[in-house]
Amino acid sequence: MSGKKKCTRLSGALVKQLLDSVDSVLFDCDGVIWRGDQAVPGATQVINLLKEKGKKVFFVTNNSSKTRKMYAEKMSTLGFNVREDEVFGTAYCCAMYLKTVCKLEGKVYLIGSNAMRQELEAVGIQQTGVGPDHICGKQADWANVPLDPEVKAVVVGFDEYFSYMKMNRAFQYLTQQDCLFVGTNRDTKLPLEGGKAVPGTGCLLLAVETAAQRQAQTVGKPNDFMFDCVASKFNVDRDRCLMVGDRLDTDILLGSNCGLKTLLTLTGVSTLADAEAHQKSGCTERQGMVPDYYVESIADLLPALQG
Amino acid sequence: MSGKKKCTRLSGALVKQLLDSVDSVLFDCDGVIWRGDQAVPGATQVINLLKEKGKKVFFVTNNSSKTRKMYAEKMSTLGFNVREDEVFGTAYCCAMYLKTVCKLEGKVYLIGSNAMRQELEAVGIQQTGVGPDHICGKQADWANVPLDPEVKAVVVGFDEYFSYMKMNRAFQYLTQQDCLFVGTNRDTKLPLEGGKAVPGTGCLLLAVETAAQRQAQTVGKPNDFMFDCVASKFNVDRDRCLMVGDRLDTDILLGSNCGLKTLLTLTGVSTLADAEAHQKSGCTERQGMVPDYYVESIADLLPALQG
Repeated sequence: MSGKKKCTRLSGALVKQLLDSVDSVLFDCDGVIWRGDQAVPGATQVINLLKEKGKKVFFVTNNSSKTRKMYAEKMSTLGFNVREDEVFGTAYCCAMYLKTVCKLEGKVYLIGSNAMRQELEAVGIQQTGVGPDHICGKQADWANVPLDPEVKAVVVGFDEYFSYMKMNRAFQYLTQQDCLFVGTNRDTKLPLEGGKAVPGTGCLLLAVETAAQRQAQTVGKPNDFMFDCVASKFNVDRDRCLMVGDRLDTDILLGSNCGLKTLLTLTGVSTLADAEAHQKSGCTERQGMVPDYYVESIADLLPALQG
Repeated sequence: MSGKKKCTRLSGALVKQLLDSVDSVLFDCDGVIWRGDQAVPGATQVINLLKEKGKKVFFVTNNSSKTRKMYAEKMSTLGFNVREDEVFGTAYCCAMYLKTVCKLEGKVYLIGSNAMRQELEAVGIQQTGVGPDHICGKQADWANVPLDPEVKAVVVGFDEYFSYMKMNRAFQYLTQQDCLFVGTNRDTKLPLEGGKAVPGTGCLLLAVETAAQRQAQTVGKPNDFMFDCVASKFNVDRDRCLMVGDRLDTDILLGSNCGLKTLLTLTGVSTLADAEAHQKSGCTERQGMVPDYYVESIADLLPALQG
């Protein structure tokens, strides 16, 4: 979009013009099509009408706590017409990354959820580590904790059972220099309804990285891999693709990184002021976080779809 | 020591010359006078002879897992002639910091050990949080976890029961902007015998800082407060004071920050090559991590003390 005016309010005739220019639309989920367990008003109609009009629609989320199947079920319950293979969460993408990019031969030490375990097992990767791991013994015991010799990768996703012992176990594996180190994403917060939040995977990942003095490769947005996952499976033309999200540093940056058109929706984390601050900064790196367009809510797309 | 040659091997007549130029000697503990549960050979004689010769000797450690009393007991067992009030650990210094600098009126939410609880209570500060805090419920419950309205500070030290729920609870307190945020130290590792290590307090603190998007004030080395604690109680003349440690980024930097003479001992974490790399870097910030002198072990001080 270089040379074009950015951060434009999307309304009127511009909506139809943009939708006509794309074949595929990628949506982030939380803060875009739903908030917590409630669909954003109008979101179901938008998604279902886009599909009826022949657009390919995909869902890309950094949240690693659900399998594709679990996402598809949640979406159906909320009234979205969605197939499991249209959903790309980091639990699934992380498994694909280990399988197709790393070509991992060995087990994973997993700091993560049961959903991550299921997606790993679905591509034939065994894991150890899911569930509580309480401390016992003394420091010398922690340093000499038994390690599974088949483990060849440490993977960090969201884990409500994250503990000192899990951090220590990951650290002991990562002292082996040939042990891979992969994280699902770096989001530091999980936003909830009413302006509340809880700590996100980024906090867990940084703790492990600091202990190990190594940096993990992350698969989630804004990393290209998330888009590559979709594009390689569904033959998406990036020149005719729109990324819709509520976060500038993940969704919009992913879109920019991959050469997609970008649309910020203001029903989630980032504000218009955030976007304008990036635009005015004059900093090249921050320009990637300026969306081409913004809407108050994706319901703003409805008139053009219904017309 | 500006203008003087730095990083000089301390031996021969230079040892006596240095010892004659100081009245007080501050020792780090782990990697300096002991390793794990074993005294460094010759260390007990060095400490005891320094005291016999009228030197004031103090122990300053970033380890927050023991009270002064527990340190004094460990030292006695190993043969050191040490009083409780000569020991300054971060459990004690953190309590002093909250009491004397912050003038805290209220409770502490403590991510830390029983030793930290005891040192806080000894200065009249109540706490909540010590011990396991397992996860239960769903995300919305975590975000609405009951908070103690009397808590006015979050304190992070070493805590083997560190968990997602503790990080979350600290985060919820820290969303209150008037809630103080204090850490004991930023060491990322606890070195153990045989080249082994376990994750240090720095990993826990960074996880909480990342969640809260706030930076904690730390009291441990290389922060001046640790020396101020000693100096204010024992009237130490910094021109006639030597800091002895095994870490350049904590012990030696504390000494430089406070204008003390500095001695690196090679029985612990940092190497002579590390020190030389700082010296050759030409970087002003890194010069503070170059010691005035180094020894293979503090046992190298023995001949001058016995002579």
